[in-house]
Amino acid sequence: MPAKTIDIKYYLEKIKKQTDSLLERYLPDESLEPVILHKAMRYSTLAGGKRLRPILAYTAYEYCGGETEGDDLPIHYAMAALEMVHTYSLIHDDLPCMDDDDLRRGMPTCHKKFGTAAAVLAGDALHDIAFNLIASTGSTSVVVELAHALGTSGMIGGQMADVEAEGKDVTKEDIINIHTRKTGALIRASVRIGAILAGANDDTMDKLTKYAEKIGLAFQIIDDILDVEGDTETLGKNVGADDEHKKATYPRAVGMETAKADAQKLITDAVALVNEYDNNVLIHLARFIGERNK
Amino acid sequence: MPAKTIDIKYYLEKIKKQTDSLLERYLPDESLEPVILHKAMRYSTLAGGKRLRPILAYTAYEYCGGETEGDDLPIHYAMAALEMVHTYSLIHDDLPCMDDDDLRRGMPTCHKKFGTAAAVLAGDALHDIAFNLIASTGSTSVVVELAHALGTSGMIGGQMADVEAEGKDVTKEDIINIHTRKTGALIRASVRIGAILAGANDDTMDKLTKYAEKIGLAFQIIDDILDVEGDTETLGKNVGADDEHKKATYPRAVGMETAKADAQKLITDAVALVNEYDNNVLIHLARFIGERNK
Repeated sequence: MPAKTIDIKYYLEKIKKQTDSLLERYLPDESLEPVILHKAMRYSTLAGGKRLRPILAYTAYEYCGGETEGDDLPIHYAMAALEMVHTYSLIHDDLPCMDDDDLRRGMPTCHKKFGTAAAVLAGDALHDIAFNLIASTGSTSVVVELAHALGTSGMIGGQMADVEAEGKDVTKEDIINIHTRKTGALIRASVRIGAILAGANDDTMDKLTKYAEKIGLAFQIIDDILDVEGDTETLGKNVGADDEHKKATYPRAVGMETAKADAQKLITDAVALVNEYDNNVLIHLARFIGERNK
Repeated sequence: MPAKTIDIKYYLEKIKKQTDSLLERYLPDESLEPVILHKAMRYSTLAGGKRLRPILAYTAYEYCGGETEGDDLPIHYAMAALEMVHTYSLIHDDLPCMDDDDLRRGMPTCHKKFGTAAAVLAGDALHDIAFNLIASTGSTSVVVELAHALGTSGMIGGQMADVEAEGKDVTKEDIINIHTRKTGALIRASVRIGAILAGANDDTMDKLTKYAEKIGLAFQIIDDILDVEGDTETLGKNVGADDEHKKATYPRAVGMETAKADAQKLITDAVALVNEYDNNVLIHLARFIGERNK
């Protein structure tokens, strides 16, 4: 059954704005000491960005029938927490000792603006405040879900493997392994946390987990493609950086045409997993990820 | 009433060994990928150290009547988590962009041994696994307690203030403010987490919180004193580093004799807060901190 047309751009913009306002509310005010850290945390977190992880959590939560009326709901804490851990990971990934990037979300990276010491600590502090928020949901299982996604079997393990793979010949399997952990684990956790907070049953949880794994991998393959074919201004980060750092990327392993076809296949498979209702934002969201140019 | 003589050194050694065995159990095996990260995490965490924070949590827990028989109790997760976050903070504090230290716990610092990228990520991963463990207690309030102690109003805020105070004239109040956050907040949280997990009542919680604040400040004042008067071999870190970095220290602000007297006064006040039983390890522990030479 084809999904009814909804204005996905309007929907995404609405959740993005909601996320921005949650972040504004839950981040410490920059007039408070330590001013430089709070400035750095707000600078990097409020710099824009797609807010994909909060959007996924919210959409999964809504799909599973979670209550959306009210302020300071557990899902709101989770949305802010997910964007904060994502921002923490970007700040640390951009450090001179890691990817040494100067530009992020169209602005100088955190360490370029505030110095390396403040950037390390701003990342650490976002990491903490995210756990404070996720624990404020009252559910230890979502805390464990998040910690697991961020750890050495997830995001950090993927980042280490990514750094180690620089300049080496890698197979498609190696790349899938890196991507699944480096970006996939947090995308998967975002969907699952939304579903857990809405009280999803095992069957739905299982389908949404597979959906998340597919769109997560598609997202990162498209990221690799955009690093070659995208536009620095549109992306807000330097294109060609992967090539410059001799990064292990999906197109490098399989060729550009296969990379594009594989990404679209993943989106189609993801859509099939949730094709149950005629107005399903998860379907539109998957397609939107498949068509993104930033 | 004077505390009955117990063999505090034997007691501390016992809990220290228990902590080591918990850390050994809960840290990922270094044969697992990413090997370098797991090696770095184990290297820094298992390098020795006093295990003060797990000891404090356990002692407060026992004092409040917590169940100590059994494996994988919530207090065990908390003890390991506290030592892991402490180790994460040491790894990041030692980085070239922070204190740039070469020696820690008698061995080369994590970045000296594994490189800066791996050290940043090993710290991040310990930070995560600690939250995974603390959430495994099943209590979101201890997760919030830990996250709060580590954040910008706690440890990270103290570390930023410490870096910023280098080379500046600081008052006694400035130093107390830095110490209270940089080391005090986690020591306070350790005691409180032990008490929370044992189900302590409000009155006990209040007294133990004050006890922890006093020994936490005394601990850091003595740390400053030992950096001047201690011995590199005994301490396992370079003495004179504070002076070299023009660190804001308590003896620099008030003079060495006043620093020593203030530390002992804090210990005496801490002891008075828990002087309820005739065989109270918390009393011996406070006195032990007052007399430490490493």
